[in-house]
Amino acid sequence: MLREEFNIKIKNYDYYDEAFTHASYVNEHPKENLRYYERIEFLGDAVMQLCVSEYLFKRYPNLPEGKLTRLRAAMVCEDSFSKLALECHFDEYIRLGNGEEKANARKRPSLLCDIFESFIGALYQDLGKEVVVDFISRVVFSKLDQGWFDHLLDHKSELQELVQKDGDAKIVYEVLDAVGPDNDRIYTMQVVVNGQVVGQGQGHSKKAAEQAAAHQALKQLR
Amino acid sequence: MLREEFNIKIKNYDYYDEAFTHASYVNEHPKENLRYYERIEFLGDAVMQLCVSEYLFKRYPNLPEGKLTRLRAAMVCEDSFSKLALECHFDEYIRLGNGEEKANARKRPSLLCDIFESFIGALYQDLGKEVVVDFISRVVFSKLDQGWFDHLLDHKSELQELVQKDGDAKIVYEVLDAVGPDNDRIYTMQVVVNGQVVGQGQGHSKKAAEQAAAHQALKQLR
Repeated sequence: MLREEFNIKIKNYDYYDEAFTHASYVNEHPKENLRYYERIEFLGDAVMQLCVSEYLFKRYPNLPEGKLTRLRAAMVCEDSFSKLALECHFDEYIRLGNGEEKANARKRPSLLCDIFESFIGALYQDLGKEVVVDFISRVVFSKLDQGWFDHLLDHKSELQELVQKDGDAKIVYEVLDAVGPDNDRIYTMQVVVNGQVVGQGQGHSKKAAEQAAAHQALKQLR
Repeated sequence: MLREEFNIKIKNYDYYDEAFTHASYVNEHPKENLRYYERIEFLGDAVMQLCVSEYLFKRYPNLPEGKLTRLRAAMVCEDSFSKLALECHFDEYIRLGNGEEKANARKRPSLLCDIFESFIGALYQDLGKEVVVDFISRVVFSKLDQGWFDHLLDHKSELQELVQKDGDAKIVYEVLDAVGPDNDRIYTMQVVVNGQVVGQGQGHSKKAAEQAAAHQALKQLR
């Protein structure tokens, strides 16, 4: 399943067995000499921290540390990881003891988050950092482009920092269009840097349309 | 200095300039288009977390997650990093504004800790993870062998986990010697696994001598 969906060429299945095994399962199978996920999750947690940090650091070369930290915290958290674990169908692979199964642990966000991290730990041990980066590019970083974390990003400030890096620059936002009734109006705006249109965007408020225009400009200028 | 002491072959000095520059210095030199350390510290922090986690994970293959986490927290903290920064003379390299200089920021543990992390971030960007691991092996991991974190490690439990991994094993601790007056007695003990002496150690209490003997046994058996 994992192999097909993400084209992961597993070398050593033992790491993944460990990553998807809960302590309650180990306790119910004392003779099988199994390991449960917690140690490998310890490793996976640190791997995720570095991969996400490095990605954000390079992708937003002018974003101050405070914003990088907020963005990382939004990406590396239980809410985010538990959703990703479900998206990757990790809940189906977990080996749980009977008691935990009855307590519906399989769908518990804290466990799903742990399992996402332990999977990352297994992938890192088995195939190394590059494969991990490739995997999380598809399942995590792509969410940035889909706007999952846009509320944390201030594209206008970022655009300003980018274009004023090499000296003064004049940035103007202009309304191009406003359609629809008062309570559902959609604005279209463009952003002009030193007389040149660099981006355009829409939104339900002028502020949102400006952010969308700045976002498009950043994509083009980078 | 860094180059001589740690044999680091710097490729790009810009990273280190950034790592050792405080915001107060940038503010006082607005025309030089300088960057201060906070962004690169964001990266360095995550690099340290991963390198230390990976090292502990591999070095203590039978230590449960809770103890790995405690050990990592003791190694990756302000107290530890600020001492390491001083040991590496990083305080001498920091570019500070006049106000901060007068406020004696150069010796402030929180700043020294930040600078240690930003230096790691610079080293990682400039020369990659292997060079970072090599550097922290010498300045951080060697402290483990020197016993800096021994109070967090329970060598006896670890030895027990190791030798009982493949089934039952009989572990016995025996007093070999006890010398000195009552209030300053030194015990020498040996640890015997399945009839074979595997380690010996000394301490001011039987418990400490047992831990030392288990520690030696672990070194030999690994």
